[in-house]
Amino acid sequence: MLSVAKHLKILRRSAPQNDKKMRRNIKLVVSYDGTEFFGFQLQPRHRSVQEVLESALKQVLQESVRVHPAGRTDSGVHAKAQVVSFNTKSSLPIGRLSAALNSRLPPDVRILRASVQPEKFHARFSAKWKRYEFIVYNDEIVPPLVRRTVYRYPFPVDFRLMQNGAKILEGRHDFKSFEGRANRQENTVRKIRSFKVSKKGKYIRFSVEGDGFLSNMVRNLVGTLLLVGRKKLSLNDLGQILKGRDRRLAGPTAPASGLTLVKVIY
Amino acid sequence: MLSVAKHLKILRRSAPQNDKKMRRNIKLVVSYDGTEFFGFQLQPRHRSVQEVLESALKQVLQESVRVHPAGRTDSGVHAKAQVVSFNTKSSLPIGRLSAALNSRLPPDVRILRASVQPEKFHARFSAKWKRYEFIVYNDEIVPPLVRRTVYRYPFPVDFRLMQNGAKILEGRHDFKSFEGRANRQENTVRKIRSFKVSKKGKYIRFSVEGDGFLSNMVRNLVGTLLLVGRKKLSLNDLGQILKGRDRRLAGPTAPASGLTLVKVIY
Repeated sequence: MLSVAKHLKILRRSAPQNDKKMRRNIKLVVSYDGTEFFGFQLQPRHRSVQEVLESALKQVLQESVRVHPAGRTDSGVHAKAQVVSFNTKSSLPIGRLSAALNSRLPPDVRILRASVQPEKFHARFSAKWKRYEFIVYNDEIVPPLVRRTVYRYPFPVDFRLMQNGAKILEGRHDFKSFEGRANRQENTVRKIRSFKVSKKGKYIRFSVEGDGFLSNMVRNLVGTLLLVGRKKLSLNDLGQILKGRDRRLAGPTAPASGLTLVKVIY
Repeated sequence: MLSVAKHLKILRRSAPQNDKKMRRNIKLVVSYDGTEFFGFQLQPRHRSVQEVLESALKQVLQESVRVHPAGRTDSGVHAKAQVVSFNTKSSLPIGRLSAALNSRLPPDVRILRASVQPEKFHARFSAKWKRYEFIVYNDEIVPPLVRRTVYRYPFPVDFRLMQNGAKILEGRHDFKSFEGRANRQENTVRKIRSFKVSKKGKYIRFSVEGDGFLSNMVRNLVGTLLLVGRKKLSLNDLGQILKGRDRRLAGPTAPASGLTLVKVIY
């Protein structure tokens, strides 16, 4: 006859809820060159970051897993430090996961770090702030060595006006005028806690940190600020665009190549 | 009957030596991402910078021209500002040449500047100094966004030792120990007027300026300095390697991806 202790141990091994307890919640910090991806999200017939990640994970963990990113970057958008989370039953030591994945990933994706997280951690829902950078190369000719990560903008722009425009956009606002067509949200209020514009030679860097971004929002903000820099829109116009809650009021969507997800803060 | 002046004018128009006088000597400053080229020099069945340049020039000038580079960069080596020169009979205004070429060139090559030069100017023979940079990423994992322009070197290196090693290499020396197999030179004496090693985060930059470089010389110098940094070679060894005039004494050839021709000084 089984002792109670032994009996409980057997139960624990076989019970599904205990199976669940054995699962680990893993966080990966992922860096990628978005040029040759049709965005993060899995798509039929198109190469996505999610696809190559899940395929490498399947080989390493011997198990199909679904990864959840902090933010789904669009086609052509890069990431210095995207974060993804997933659950796995695999007992592979966490210290070996990055190297095992990197040896199977294509050169345009790399795992920077891997860690085990509490069960409640979720790359997207636990994220407090995300920081994006958009780089403009303000000249006629872009040096080929940087062409994949900048937006060529050959028009003269007033740098101070764009800095002042970015200041107007800081804070909690309804950003409906800057929301793209895809994946529209019910609630379009977001908080931008910092929006800086800096310049170094011909490079103009837009660095924006917020609690969340609507689809194409950063690219629409940059496209609009560039029109402010060209004096096609005034700072007063910018305020009106924000108030208007109408995408047709704002400037064009700046191209994906200039945009990089730089950091996710938890 | 013709006046003497008119007669001379006709002669001038038709004489071949006057044809020659109408040719202009053009200098182009060219920037390229070497990743997808098999080097600068024309080659059968392989994509070269020379091939795409001469093909664009033929379309623009309606004439076949041969371009001469300041230095023939190897397969995979980049250029921020390579210089090429060529002669042309075309009367296309020089101010329109860059834009005309750039609209026909692939995105990994760009003309930065074009100018008319005196007849005796030659991109290679007139060059006084060339500056190359080699970038090492000193960590296990290279961020995908910079992977095309760095050499991943995951071993700990003593930065000061490499700086001191570079100092030893400055000056006029016989660099035979650092000459690659291709295109060997009779005279292997060259002058390095500056060899700096600097560090920023995980990036180590080797910046070397000299009056000329043997085939693979910069990559062999960097490969050897990295062994000094790892303490596999002492500074004394480095001096002996230089004196030995034997390629087998020096370190390995660092890969092309890290190397960029940065500047040619006339």
